[in-house]
Amino acid sequence: MNETIETMLNHRSVRKFKDEKLTLEQIQVIVESAQMASTSSFIQAYSIIGVTDPEKKKKLAALAGGQDYVAESGHFFVFCADLYRHSLIGKWENTDVEDSITSMEKFMVSVIDASLAAQNAAVAAESMGLGICYIGGIRNHLDEVSELLETPSHVIPLFGLTVGVPDQETAVKPRMPFQSIYHENSYRYDEQVVKTELDEYDEAISAYYHGRTSGKRTDKWTGQMANMLEKKNRMYMKEFVEGKNFAKK
Amino acid sequence: MNETIETMLNHRSVRKFKDEKLTLEQIQVIVESAQMASTSSFIQAYSIIGVTDPEKKKKLAALAGGQDYVAESGHFFVFCADLYRHSLIGKWENTDVEDSITSMEKFMVSVIDASLAAQNAAVAAESMGLGICYIGGIRNHLDEVSELLETPSHVIPLFGLTVGVPDQETAVKPRMPFQSIYHENSYRYDEQVVKTELDEYDEAISAYYHGRTSGKRTDKWTGQMANMLEKKNRMYMKEFVEGKNFAKK
Repeated sequence: MNETIETMLNHRSVRKFKDEKLTLEQIQVIVESAQMASTSSFIQAYSIIGVTDPEKKKKLAALAGGQDYVAESGHFFVFCADLYRHSLIGKWENTDVEDSITSMEKFMVSVIDASLAAQNAAVAAESMGLGICYIGGIRNHLDEVSELLETPSHVIPLFGLTVGVPDQETAVKPRMPFQSIYHENSYRYDEQVVKTELDEYDEAISAYYHGRTSGKRTDKWTGQMANMLEKKNRMYMKEFVEGKNFAKK
Repeated sequence: MNETIETMLNHRSVRKFKDEKLTLEQIQVIVESAQMASTSSFIQAYSIIGVTDPEKKKKLAALAGGQDYVAESGHFFVFCADLYRHSLIGKWENTDVEDSITSMEKFMVSVIDASLAAQNAAVAAESMGLGICYIGGIRNHLDEVSELLETPSHVIPLFGLTVGVPDQETAVKPRMPFQSIYHENSYRYDEQVVKTELDEYDEAISAYYHGRTSGKRTDKWTGQMANMLEKKNRMYMKEFVEGKNFAKK
């Protein structure tokens, strides 16, 4: 196994950081790694906003649900789906790009582009011994986040990535078994097969929590998911996304 | 610079592969690396379908727009947004999860989850000396792709990833300058600033094509984007996505 794969298999989210800011060089290497991810037809439909202003970081931490480590990390990146440049290009080149850039297809392209870039950033940071945590919580209040970061139409902040020197030891969380996530040639949709596989996974997850909490927690994954998905969360999103001129047609 | 960052900065798409299949061990390491990517609230809202059946690979290559290297690669992975398991969990746990899993928010979660996983897979493959190319072309005909791979409701094949032993030397394509993709604290939306930055990038891209084609091509990036986005591509996507019970509300 090589160093790169070892870095990825060793991933765990870090939510407590030492009080050390990233250097400009570290930020540049992380962003350049992000940029070298694949991009659909070279469209590069994303932007990265680095938040260093302490007031803005505090506000973002609060908007993300009181996650203090957003403010207290070494650096906070926000990854955005971005077709704003492309809308300007349409204007400059006198070309009608509006139907295209407001389509569901190009929304998917920009979300995928931003995510591929972000994962390269995450792996680059971890390869340097830094810890990371994705912050989906910024989607709690995207209207306020957009205002704070002054993002125009055709731009949506998707998630944050907090990066810094780890100040805690966390454990690698066991993922679904290989055979549950990986299908060959056809999707295995048979309900009984899925049930049997997830029963097995539930046991592994229960054992994981049991071990980490001296028996206090024994949640199953399926139970966690049912509890989480029962809540109707961020149901404003469709209107927000369309309001930013994405996924309208 | 460490090996991992070197691997990422050295990325180029590979579209010609030697006739060597990936081993089961390679496939497993790639999938396990994918699985260790971050996932929103541990939801793991994606699946990976490995296509090995030669007939299916040929059909997928044709559906993706006649990209023969899809059929001729060492392995072809298809990454899917997947909330099918979660819909079953709702049923088993007698919990109403339908509003949640059909929301725009959870569509974004599953597209992001699948993309983070895919990028780990891509980096894992490249770290082993393999070449990769993402295949967005499967979105040309998602109805037929879904039928071929037998994906149920709540599952959308998003893109392919073709992996194999490279049989061509390709060049690293210059990305947008750091200052164009990276903003600090606020998004720089001033049109003149964006124009000046993209003019500079256009020159770099023209020089890149000029150098690689002995002066035959000198396209600018902005011109490429205007030409591409003028075409209304995959405009069926919104209806398709909603038909699969994603992003409906």
